[in-house]
Amino acid sequence: MTYAPPLAEMRFALEEMAGLGRLRALDADGHLDHATLDQVLGEAARLARDAIAPLNHSGDRAGSRLDNGVVRTPPGWRQAYGAFVEGGWNALPFAPEHGGQGMPWAVATAVHEMWESASLAFALCPLLTAGATDLLQAHGSEAQKAKYLPRMVEGSWTGTMKSEMPRDPAGARNDLRVVSLENKLGIHASPTCVMAYGDDGGAIGELVGEENRGLEYMFTMMNNARLAVGLQGVAIAERAFQQARAYALSRVQSRELGSRDPGPVPIVRHPDVRRMLMTMRTGIEAARGLAYLAATELDLSRRHPDEAARAAHQARVDLLIPVVKAWATDLGVEIASMGVQVHGGMGFVEETGAAQHYRDARILPIYEGTNGIQANDLVFRKLGRDAGAAAASFLDEARADADALAAHAGDDAAAIVARLRAGLDALDAATRAMVALQAASPRRAAAGASPYLRLFGLVAGGHVLARGARAALAGLAAGPADAAFLRARLASARFYADHWLSQAPSLVHAAIEGGALVEALGDDEI
Amino acid sequence: MTYAPPLAEMRFALEEMAGLGRLRALDADGHLDHATLDQVLGEAARLARDAIAPLNHSGDRAGSRLDNGVVRTPPGWRQAYGAFVEGGWNALPFAPEHGGQGMPWAVATAVHEMWESASLAFALCPLLTAGATDLLQAHGSEAQKAKYLPRMVEGSWTGTMKSEMPRDPAGARNDLRVVSLENKLGIHASPTCVMAYGDDGGAIGELVGEENRGLEYMFTMMNNARLAVGLQGVAIAERAFQQARAYALSRVQSRELGSRDPGPVPIVRHPDVRRMLMTMRTGIEAARGLAYLAATELDLSRRHPDEAARAAHQARVDLLIPVVKAWATDLGVEIASMGVQVHGGMGFVEETGAAQHYRDARILPIYEGTNGIQANDLVFRKLGRDAGAAAASFLDEARADADALAAHAGDDAAAIVARLRAGLDALDAATRAMVALQAASPRRAAAGASPYLRLFGLVAGGHVLARGARAALAGLAAGPADAAFLRARLASARFYADHWLSQAPSLVHAAIEGGALVEALGDDEI
Repeated sequence: MTYAPPLAEMRFALEEMAGLGRLRALDADGHLDHATLDQVLGEAARLARDAIAPLNHSGDRAGSRLDNGVVRTPPGWRQAYGAFVEGGWNALPFAPEHGGQGMPWAVATAVHEMWESASLAFALCPLLTAGATDLLQAHGSEAQKAKYLPRMVEGSWTGTMKSEMPRDPAGARNDLRVVSLENKLGIHASPTCVMAYGDDGGAIGELVGEENRGLEYMFTMMNNARLAVGLQGVAIAERAFQQARAYALSRVQSRELGSRDPGPVPIVRHPDVRRMLMTMRTGIEAARGLAYLAATELDLSRRHPDEAARAAHQARVDLLIPVVKAWATDLGVEIASMGVQVHGGMGFVEETGAAQHYRDARILPIYEGTNGIQANDLVFRKLGRDAGAAAASFLDEARADADALAAHAGDDAAAIVARLRAGLDALDAATRAMVALQAASPRRAAAGASPYLRLFGLVAGGHVLARGARAALAGLAAGPADAAFLRARLASARFYADHWLSQAPSLVHAAIEGGALVEALGDDEI
Repeated sequence: MTYAPPLAEMRFALEEMAGLGRLRALDADGHLDHATLDQVLGEAARLARDAIAPLNHSGDRAGSRLDNGVVRTPPGWRQAYGAFVEGGWNALPFAPEHGGQGMPWAVATAVHEMWESASLAFALCPLLTAGATDLLQAHGSEAQKAKYLPRMVEGSWTGTMKSEMPRDPAGARNDLRVVSLENKLGIHASPTCVMAYGDDGGAIGELVGEENRGLEYMFTMMNNARLAVGLQGVAIAERAFQQARAYALSRVQSRELGSRDPGPVPIVRHPDVRRMLMTMRTGIEAARGLAYLAATELDLSRRHPDEAARAAHQARVDLLIPVVKAWATDLGVEIASMGVQVHGGMGFVEETGAAQHYRDARILPIYEGTNGIQANDLVFRKLGRDAGAAAASFLDEARADADALAAHAGDDAAAIVARLRAGLDALDAATRAMVALQAASPRRAAAGASPYLRLFGLVAGGHVLARGARAALAGLAAGPADAAFLRARLASARFYADHWLSQAPSLVHAAIEGGALVEALGDDEI
């Protein structure tokens, strides 16, 4: 149940799929030079691997407890969080004027992936602090910023989902208390509480910004929060994959098909187990690439010097966010389930830890807006507001990438291009039909929105892996450095094209025609 | 968390999809006349609904316990099992000479579905007893049959997965003991034990049949056991569906899309929730129809008077069993997961019970031969032994059913036929390619076996629903009786065609081409 951050894959995704170079070109601070980046990622990897990951399973078993009204996290968690704050990790993406390090979200996203893989339950606390910090940075008064931000950026004060933010520094307790802890399917170490406010005369709150604009303020932070949850899908999938791969390399059972040796072999030698592992790995590589791309677009929408470019990047990130959130978290559940399957009967026993990932992952398609809400957001807001123009621009860029890959020789490039073009044609047709359907029959469009989002995710994942494949081919042509790694990236892209991307065209029907049937039965006939 | 056995759907599946009439024509005992069948199903439904289903959630919370070496089932379970035995339900499918009732497996399968939906953990005990009973019926000596079968058929002695079967009627305990209970992801009420044998001088066992033929004997019972587990997939999906539907009808949230009324509505009115519920319902109807069809073929393989017909039915049941086991259990996990999603945040909280189904379902693709093993069985044994002849015969029959449905007027029939024919073409092509691949490259065939099995399941499910659609159209043409029910069956078949069956053609690629890539990377590069 160890976790080794896949630094090489993460760097490859940042550079070759997300196009970090675009951000590096704008970076005056040297935050993104290769040595600094290596150092940041390497240090985060150590903390995630050595201090946080070992607590994940024991934290699940012990859970958080309620002890005389005080929530106690599992043994070791306090110390690990201390090390996390001590290392300055909480401050990574926040503004330097509040004590932050001003790192781009693209890099913070890669770092956050490691905390999330190490322990989803642990990383929820910084994730919620980040949301509250974002809110105050954007909408707090100067007094509020001065009062709260330094300690929140540092991480010594933390955020929650509810408004627990005021605590009198002089020590008086606010009038709120924890009534009970929820009994949840997963993320047991994260204390989800039933709260009572004002039992003793009234709780104190502070208004952030103007009255009655809370929902609007929430929307301004939504892209970050939804990207963070999509990333959790990537992260739990990576953890489940690493565990399944380790098991498959060590568990010896049955003879090898096609071998004359009658002795049993590690189950990784069995083709169906290899298929599962490669399905897991390639789904992760695609979803990671897409999440990092969305993070880079987010940075460009804020950092690009040109206003029109900022607006274009904003439109792109708005388009991609619901896809990253919903598609990557659905993948997280599917891949965690495959991780259980690779273990066979041992996967159903809690001791191995595979089952924990399956339980933990299940919250991801639900919170921060259910995946159904993401699908509606994609269809009605993101396609609806510009009649599909942002989607068309994305399709154009992906087609250009397919063309560029097609210029390379070899079976792999040809196979990837063929499947990507089929996927792009399907997405193009579905997008046009969905834009038309929105006006003609909004309920049908809503009924087809989830299959449409899955189609979008499969194709967008194919697009970033095709970029990776092109970089791998270019790298292989340039020389022998990293040849094995680059050949593996090429194989990943092709496997994804054969096993994931090939499903894309079949979803057009469910997205466009399938919606008609949703109303065929009365509520009581379903 | 109630469960209401879907008797109308079960009767429809038995009569119109499985073709129970073929068995009724051979039935001299009157076991299958409509009144008897109604009575059996109705009585079973009462016991499942009133006595067993209410224990499912409390049993999960309490779990089985180990108390001074004795396993204690959760409160109320002993009494419920007593009522089950008292009612004669354990004896349903066994031979009358041992106290059984000689019911066909088709009927027993419908009855078993109710126990499994009521509580997967409860029904595991009779399932394991049935396996052991089958073994003794087929391979036990006359003395063994006389000693064990009456009480096992009755259910007062039960079977296990391991050979715990000898217990001296005079009262001396055998030298075996329970060391511990496994800490499992689900089916908590079912005591999965670590056992120790012979710590105190040696445990006593009895040899059944001849030495060294145990594995061969196991194979003779495998069809029954695998069918039973496939049925568990249907059953847990049905339970999860009923729970999600009840929640969606009662939970009020957000305004209705396309309505002028700004007030919140039950979430069943939201198109994406309807889509999920219909996806669940129609997947269940297809998998149930296929499981009942396999059970009926099993009966015909034993009861048909003509030897050639028996052999043909045997070939059909051998072909369908791995598909039912793997496809229906994969569906069980997917549908239980959708059930959590319909609940939103409440699905992640254990109190609602939705999460239990998600946990319980996860064992099904693993035990009784993992789904990967089923896929290999389908490709190497079931296609391999007759070069695809049994599959070709199944395809011919399904094509004839598609033609018969095509003779009916209307959009629904046309849409279902179009998707079914596309699925049949895909399955036909994949089957031919898979037969060729087996000889040319067995490891590639093995790597494509799971996608091939899924393709087979999706198409076979479409086939039984097309039969149902034809029966519904014929019934609607005949008169107004049951019109709403029959229209709903037609809508189910079309929804399945649009949302499930439409995925079939996309799997040909993963099944046939996708296998090539499984070997692209070394073991340590995956």
